Amino acid sequence: QKLKLDSFGKGIFNSVAKDSTWSMKFGLRMQYLTTIGLDADENSHFDFDPNNLKTDTKVRRYRLKFDGFVLSPKLKYKIELGMSNNDTGSANEYTKLGPKLILDAVLKWNFYKNLELWAGQTKLPGNRERVISSANMQLVDRSLLNKEFTLDRDMGFQLRNHHTIGKQFLIREVFAITQGEGRNITTGNVGGQQYTSRVEVLPFGAFTSKGDYSGGDLKREPTQKLSIGATYNHNDRASRQRGSQGSIIEIIIDNDKPEDDVFATTDVNTSFVDFMYKYKGYSAMGEFAYRNADDTKLGSKPVKVGKGYNLATGYLFKNNYEIAARYTQIDYKGVANTTEQYTVGVSKYIVGHALKIQTDLSYTTVDYASKGLQYRIQFEVHF
Amino acid sequence: QKLKLDSFGKGIFNSVAKDSTWSMKFGLRMQYLTTIGLDADENSHFDFDPNNLKTDTKVRRYRLKFDGFVLSPKLKYKIELGMSNNDTGSANEYTKLGPKLILDAVLKWNFYKNLELWAGQTKLPGNRERVISSANMQLVDRSLLNKEFTLDRDMGFQLRNHHTIGKQFLIREVFAITQGEGRNITTGNVGGQQYTSRVEVLPFGAFTSKGDYSGGDLKREPTQKLSIGATYNHNDRASRQRGSQGSIIEIIIDNDKPEDDVFATTDVNTSFVDFMYKYKGYSAMGEFAYRNADDTKLGSKPVKVGKGYNLATGYLFKNNYEIAARYTQIDYKGVANTTEQYTVGVSKYIVGHALKIQTDLSYTTVDYASKGLQYRIQFEVHF
Amino acid sequence: QKLKLDSFGKGIFNSVAKDSTWSMKFGLRMQYLTTIGLDADENSHFDFDPNNLKTDTKVRRYRLKFDGFVLSPKLKYKIELGMSNNDTGSANEYTKLGPKLILDAVLKWNFYKNLELWAGQTKLPGNRERVISSANMQLVDRSLLNKEFTLDRDMGFQLRNHHTIGKQFLIREVFAITQGEGRNITTGNVGGQQYTSRVEVLPFGAFTSKGDYSGGDLKREPTQKLSIGATYNHNDRASRQRGSQGSIIEIIIDNDKPEDDVFATTDVNTSFVDFMYKYKGYSAMGEFAYRNADDTKLGSKPVKVGKGYNLATGYLFKNNYEIAARYTQIDYKGVANTTEQYTVGVSKYIVGHALKIQTDLSYTTVDYASKGLQYRIQFEVHF
Repeated sequence: QKLKLDSFGKGIFNSVAKDSTWSMKFGLRMQYLTTIGLDADENSHFDFDPNNLKTDTKVRRYRLKFDGFVLSPKLKYKIELGMSNNDTGSANEYTKLGPKLILDAVLKWNFYKNLELWAGQTKLPGNRERVISSANMQLVDRSLLNKEFTLDRDMGFQLRNHHTIGKQFLIREVFAITQGEGRNITTGNVGGQQYTSRVEVLPFGAFTSKGDYSGGDLKREPTQKLSIGATYNHNDRASRQRGSQGSIIEIIIDNDKPEDDVFATTDVNTSFVDFMYKYKGYSAMGEFAYRNADDTKLGSKPVKVGKGYNLATGYLFKNNYEIAARYTQIDYKGVANTTEQYTVGVSKYIVGHALKIQTDLSYTTVDYASKGLQYRIQFEVHF
Repeated sequence: QKLKLDSFGKGIFNSVAKDSTWSMKFGLRMQYLTTIGLDADENSHFDFDPNNLKTDTKVRRYRLKFDGFVLSPKLKYKIELGMSNNDTGSANEYTKLGPKLILDAVLKWNFYKNLELWAGQTKLPGNRERVISSANMQLVDRSLLNKEFTLDRDMGFQLRNHHTIGKQFLIREVFAITQGEGRNITTGNVGGQQYTSRVEVLPFGAFTSKGDYSGGDLKREPTQKLSIGATYNHNDRASRQRGSQGSIIEIIIDNDKPEDDVFATTDVNTSFVDFMYKYKGYSAMGEFAYRNADDTKLGSKPVKVGKGYNLATGYLFKNNYEIAARYTQIDYKGVANTTEQYTVGVSKYIVGHALKIQTDLSYTTVDYASKGLQYRIQFEVHF
Repeated sequence: QKLKLDSFGKGIFNSVAKDSTWSMKFGLRMQYLTTIGLDADENSHFDFDPNNLKTDTKVRRYRLKFDGFVLSPKLKYKIELGMSNNDTGSANEYTKLGPKLILDAVLKWNFYKNLELWAGQTKLPGNRERVISSANMQLVDRSLLNKEFTLDRDMGFQLRNHHTIGKQFLIREVFAITQGEGRNITTGNVGGQQYTSRVEVLPFGAFTSKGDYSGGDLKREPTQKLSIGATYNHNDRASRQRGSQGSIIEIIIDNDKPEDDVFATTDVNTSFVDFMYKYKGYSAMGEFAYRNADDTKLGSKPVKVGKGYNLATGYLFKNNYEIAARYTQIDYKGVANTTEQYTVGVSKYIVGHALKIQTDLSYTTVDYASKGLQYRIQFEVHF
């Protein structure tokens, strides 16, 4: 005898207490990725000798997810654990030498009208690409902009609100105070806290099924939908090259106990402007990012300052094949070069984002000279 | 359609086989902790400049729990996995450089009358505070006594018995033979085994819902309840500063294969006397600990010998708010100082220990001079 | 109220969607192992002083398992996660310094008749002993042959077919192209791919309940069953001492980014011939292994080349006790010695392989001189 459950893609274990005191949905998802890369030679030419190809196959992401409510639907929780070696990142003395298994562990309390207080570890309201789940991407992976500028996750508090002006003009506001050191740090805060504000306007109302935070127009919006967002982030006395992320700028005093280490710190500011547009299977997304620091020369690994932008667009055919393209440009100051990346991709959504095959091809240049080619194919299954 | 489950706090997945050949309860719990600390300066004064505050926010504990029986209710099992970086401790070459995910993995076989044989890894019958689950604590965390003297977990066997004299005078006995190296060690035993004996007397009978191993009198015992316990532990040729715990005393020969390393060892003895008292919302708990070693000068990090005690008390109001206080004193020999800690705390038990907010403030002195202040606030949810 | 589930040993959570779009079985298993060893002294004598005994108690294996189908029973998946420190192996810079939690993560697509395409990480079709689950072994653990020659797991693709000639003569073929670096590597492929072919013939038809890949004749085959298998494996420009496994032969250029490290590589070929025979409680299994390399002198840790074989046999009594014996011999070239190991064991299968106690005693010689004695006792429970 077997338990009878919901259709595929809606969670493995979807339960609610008989007395409605809590609920839980348990999900699981995984991504298999194969990458074939070719680096240009010193003359920026590509030599297509099979021996020059770099291949890489791996479980890119493997996640366990738990979400639901406690006591009342007004108190929700979300937990996500990563199990693949790519998920758990690099262990170091600031994470007790352990893998970073916990991605999200957050409580969301709707304490008044539309106001929600979030507490715990989760994504900051940074660039749109990052906040879109890695399960719901339009291309095989996020852009270089995200890699270089994302605020990623942090521990702390977020206050969220939304309201509608007139019939459908939707505005969302988020303000976050967080530790500023990134996820899974066990040795406490360095310098001051990190402050993040974000405003979004959706002049034509909410997207179908939260489509403003999902790649591709899988819901084929019958009317035009647009979201424009802007984020400002201030990391007070940050210790890392990308604020809360990346390598440590410099360790000044290395103690026996890592929680007593002393770091070079400087204030780091990061801003984003981004948008998402969808209409009848057509989608476009763009992001602009800018980072600066009070002291851009500090330490042996100074803060990476500069700007970047990207633009992605795609069209979903009736047969649930999608073609998409993306252009990304990164300009880091000091590091005197411009990186550009052109990506084209094809996706087959078998059961939406829950079961899909995606493939893309990227061409990267540095200062307008060829640097690398990369072909990727990825399979996603999401229970 | 959703599965219909039990009320909140009783496990996520509570199941039994149709033919009663096994059962399993699956639970999950997490603790979010924020700490704000202030160290005294060299003159033992506190300078309340915000820049001097040390803050730390983290997922303190994140656990998956499985328990139930196999074949017959007389053969029970308990498994607890830790997922937070604080849970998985520090990886080292004696744990295959891996995180210590497994907390408990133990079988409990009731083979004759009240006799139970336990096999596997679990907590030793050491000090009461340690054996109380970290989910059921009266203050935000355990005392300094526990930190310095606990026997914690180990791999091996425990024999447990209990009997009642007269109407209600309950006596419990435990004897354990374990490896003596602590949890999750993959490189085998060093020196001899570790032997632990514990006796408990409960003159007024068992506490309601195992309240002798739960912080605070949440069950508001209608009649007085008391438990007095005493533990004696002998670690034959121990290799660590606190017997089976803490830093290695000294590595004499460091081999390529960590299982062949040779260590400085000496016999270590640890004793505890403790009690728990509860009556109508009032509770008191006390512990005394004493550690000695055959050779107290051995190695570059000799065994930490000395004594400590603590006393905690609390009262639970009708509205499920509790106020509690704790005093702890630690005296290590050789290390010529006395550490004292005063803690006061307030807890709001929303759904008993399963959903609660706790906060406390601690003041620590060393040799009667101010050393540190620490404020903590913690949220616990326990499915 | 409790969920009503299947009998013990058939998975914890056995479910199928109401619309048959997916299924999942969730299982969990653990092994407790205690080992007592005695090394021979320099004169190859055993001194049975208790102080010379090396003891080791641990959670040997602790696994979470998920398997089922997606969309159609023709698209199956299998996931296995390891949680014990022994399971997660040694973290290193090629696994992002993280534990190797993922054992299997594989999709199996039956796309045409008996043809199946497997994609992901799982065991290669190497020696029979390895492919037999560690839950279903006849003795406490696998032989030295497996330790020295196994192909273990890898990332990539397998094509599998089977067909029957006449009434019952069953033939199976497998061909695999995989990365050749072993499991959970995050830094991509080194050298070329790894190619593995295997053919199996079962002249008397399939074993009951896949008994050709399970230790001991627990199904007491009423008629004789035999499987003979042969594997040939070619690892194109391998970087490790045992092909995809073991220590790195030599790092030639150690970059900051481990994915750019340059390694000494040489082609490595491994072959196996093995068989399984079962009849009325009696079972016999044998394996022969041979490894060679293009350049057997390369690097500071050259490829281990040589051969090995083992032979195991057992008889299951009516009361589900089994006695078994195994002989293993390993001859590594260059390393001028022959290792032999004699093992005898007794198992009590309480609920088949799902709940059992196993114990064995091994005697090892090197060049016909006594080297070591080892006694092991293991408990397995498999929900």
